[in-house]
Amino acid sequence: MRKELASLLSEIGRRVIPTPAERRRMEELSSALLERTQKTVETARLDGIASLQGSMAKDTWLHGQADLDVFVQFPPSVERSEWTDRVLPLLRKEFNDYQVIERYAEHPFLELITIDNVRVNVVPCYRVEKGKWLSATDRTPYHKEYMNSKLTEETRLQARLLKRFCMGIDVYGAEIKVGGFSGMLAETLALYYKSFPKLLVSAGQWKTSSVIDIEGVYEGRLGEARKKFQDNPLVVVDPVDPERNLAAALRSERLWSFVAASRELLERPGKQFFYPGPFRPRTTADIRRKMRLSGADILAVSFQHQEMVPDILWGQLYRLEGALTELLERNEFQVVRSKVWSDEEKRSAVLFELHEASLPPMVVRQGPPVERLTESRSFIVKHATAKDTVRGPWIEGERWMVEKRREFRSADDFLRTVVGARKMNISLPSHLEPGLSNRARYLLNEKIVQLVGTDRGFREAFWTFIEGKPRWLKAS
Amino acid sequence: MRKELASLLSEIGRRVIPTPAERRRMEELSSALLERTQKTVETARLDGIASLQGSMAKDTWLHGQADLDVFVQFPPSVERSEWTDRVLPLLRKEFNDYQVIERYAEHPFLELITIDNVRVNVVPCYRVEKGKWLSATDRTPYHKEYMNSKLTEETRLQARLLKRFCMGIDVYGAEIKVGGFSGMLAETLALYYKSFPKLLVSAGQWKTSSVIDIEGVYEGRLGEARKKFQDNPLVVVDPVDPERNLAAALRSERLWSFVAASRELLERPGKQFFYPGPFRPRTTADIRRKMRLSGADILAVSFQHQEMVPDILWGQLYRLEGALTELLERNEFQVVRSKVWSDEEKRSAVLFELHEASLPPMVVRQGPPVERLTESRSFIVKHATAKDTVRGPWIEGERWMVEKRREFRSADDFLRTVVGARKMNISLPSHLEPGLSNRARYLLNEKIVQLVGTDRGFREAFWTFIEGKPRWLKAS
Repeated sequence: MRKELASLLSEIGRRVIPTPAERRRMEELSSALLERTQKTVETARLDGIASLQGSMAKDTWLHGQADLDVFVQFPPSVERSEWTDRVLPLLRKEFNDYQVIERYAEHPFLELITIDNVRVNVVPCYRVEKGKWLSATDRTPYHKEYMNSKLTEETRLQARLLKRFCMGIDVYGAEIKVGGFSGMLAETLALYYKSFPKLLVSAGQWKTSSVIDIEGVYEGRLGEARKKFQDNPLVVVDPVDPERNLAAALRSERLWSFVAASRELLERPGKQFFYPGPFRPRTTADIRRKMRLSGADILAVSFQHQEMVPDILWGQLYRLEGALTELLERNEFQVVRSKVWSDEEKRSAVLFELHEASLPPMVVRQGPPVERLTESRSFIVKHATAKDTVRGPWIEGERWMVEKRREFRSADDFLRTVVGARKMNISLPSHLEPGLSNRARYLLNEKIVQLVGTDRGFREAFWTFIEGKPRWLKAS
Repeated sequence: MRKELASLLSEIGRRVIPTPAERRRMEELSSALLERTQKTVETARLDGIASLQGSMAKDTWLHGQADLDVFVQFPPSVERSEWTDRVLPLLRKEFNDYQVIERYAEHPFLELITIDNVRVNVVPCYRVEKGKWLSATDRTPYHKEYMNSKLTEETRLQARLLKRFCMGIDVYGAEIKVGGFSGMLAETLALYYKSFPKLLVSAGQWKTSSVIDIEGVYEGRLGEARKKFQDNPLVVVDPVDPERNLAAALRSERLWSFVAASRELLERPGKQFFYPGPFRPRTTADIRRKMRLSGADILAVSFQHQEMVPDILWGQLYRLEGALTELLERNEFQVVRSKVWSDEEKRSAVLFELHEASLPPMVVRQGPPVERLTESRSFIVKHATAKDTVRGPWIEGERWMVEKRREFRSADDFLRTVVGARKMNISLPSHLEPGLSNRARYLLNEKIVQLVGTDRGFREAFWTFIEGKPRWLKAS
């Protein structure tokens, strides 16, 4: 390890470990919450045991990033409805001194927000034997047990460095919005490689479908693991469940960003890999100048929607991004890149960089092969004397071809008409559909600047988009 | 057959048969030429026999289209050099009352042009048994023998109708320029289908690789014929040589034009299928208006060159067309259609219709997959801080991407620099290369009009190109 990297890591190391005061505050908070949760479950006369889980319980949380996970483990005999109907209402009442949000994953759970902005999840799960999982959260207590039996002070530090690195390069979190590295995945990697710099070196050499099997359950049959998880670009076998890939939610782009950033950090160490620093405010004039210089055509679709659970919202937003990309490309508007932004409350936007937002007046259409008699006949009847035929039909190789007048020459008009006014039969994500037809805005280039004033988050997202280069990449 | 078609064909039939006076003139001419050729061969003391071949000898020539083929058949013992060194010079002297052009195919031959513009080819070949061919022209006497033993007055008329149809729709002639139907191919089809209208019906239903085997030599094993001639879109087995496809020179486009025009003639009979009539003169203003209306970008490359045998010239021109198309498309100038024009003396041009002649200021480049360590490193070094990088690099899916400033934004500049000034290492057809660098003109849209004045043929070719629809296609 180069000296420069070593001193950087020791500096970062000092910043990621929680302070004694912070620990005290969190321990007090968590034991109070545990006690109140346990009491509430007992009031409901259910056999449930409250316990602390997550990074706090594993001592892998980061300074300034304290979130708490309180789990209630029930025996398999308890019906799910009992949680929903009997426990949840009691918990809501019990915790009325906090801001309480009801959330949904596989089953509903509560999120409490304290005055000092600590977020606490109160989540149910089943107390089952390993492998006999009844719900998605049943593995969590085993994860805690496993980590606490394996992690040392040193590997905890390495895990914290890794988590901070993932945050710094925007790949932390398995939620749909990010599709990155979960806490458990990061801890497992830290444990496997033992040292963060060694992990960087190895990650820099990962290939598609690398398999990391910390407990060696697939020893001698790695191919089997690769096949079982063949849709995932990285396989990290869950140490408490060989049937599960801890990296199942990791999207290709996040994995390869991690790989590229690992190499880059080794070659050109810098604090920005861990703490990219706040976004430097950009004026509207800055933005205009940047757009002019880069010369690309940017299209923004900005719209409002109801509030949703983030995983649902982001799922819908990504589906929308895919649907609009397909729609644009089917109409010859080539999409170079795209990005989704949301305030996660009521306003979101999809940004597209287009090869060209304005297309030539005609479009070339391939017709049937001449040998197909019936199709050829209808092709000729349809196009030979049609008003919107600009040229042809002619025969090229073995096919009919024709040039038609293009219906939509500009991408914003196109989406405004097709999506906004529903002129084509397209299917849009259901929760976003209303906002896309009513008062959605389809803006091109300079006109997007009018959105920039409305939201700091959007301004940052937009700037990052037109810059189009990861913030950690400085390479010179 | 519909009445309309029947009366059209009887009208055309009257126009394609040579007049008695025409026949007399041609018979006199051919017997005089035969006699003089025979005498010359004997002067050279060679055992050669002069005979009349081709459509005149088979009585399948068209009114107003008299060309003569005089063949001299030698025994295999005669060396090719004896033709070139001894016979040709004597023939040139003998025929000094005609305009004489020396031409080359497999071996040199003479073309004589009479005062009344009859073209006469004087060609050598070998007198061999069927199948023991020594040169490409040895089959010709067998073709004549075969046709004269099979054709009747009626099938001769059908063959003439077919030839006239092929001329009318621009698919007549096996030479490289056309890549269409040879005389022998047309005669064989007429003989096979017996009636021109029946041929139209069948041709309208031809599929790729239809096999027509008039002598039934491949009976029960048509698949074998199809395999032997698998690169040809139509297979018509030569009745004097089962190893040869009479349609070997037929290009896909010509075949399918023939098929489409056959259907069209059946549905909407019209004289234009046989006699498209002279090109209606268009003014420069007409041309400008047409270009504006159709909205496409047209690029013309016009240049001079030495005089060449047509087959060589057209071979080079088509290779040039292919090379320039590839060059344009590699640089993202999408070619919709292209066409070659030549005065067949010293000036030629390639026309391109482009999707767009002017491209956006930047170009998107795909980099290596992130997992490739070395390539990724050099990609970053090369692009991350380069002056001509407009955006990125960024990671998309598993790959690096980057946007660069585009070097050539307009297609005419691009070709002028790359081809005209040889800024890239590209290979061009050798005989055309000099003319492309010196004084070649690379013109876009309106500017092409300045070429239009220089040549009636070019004006017609250019008009037809921007119209882009076969003249026979009227379909309403």
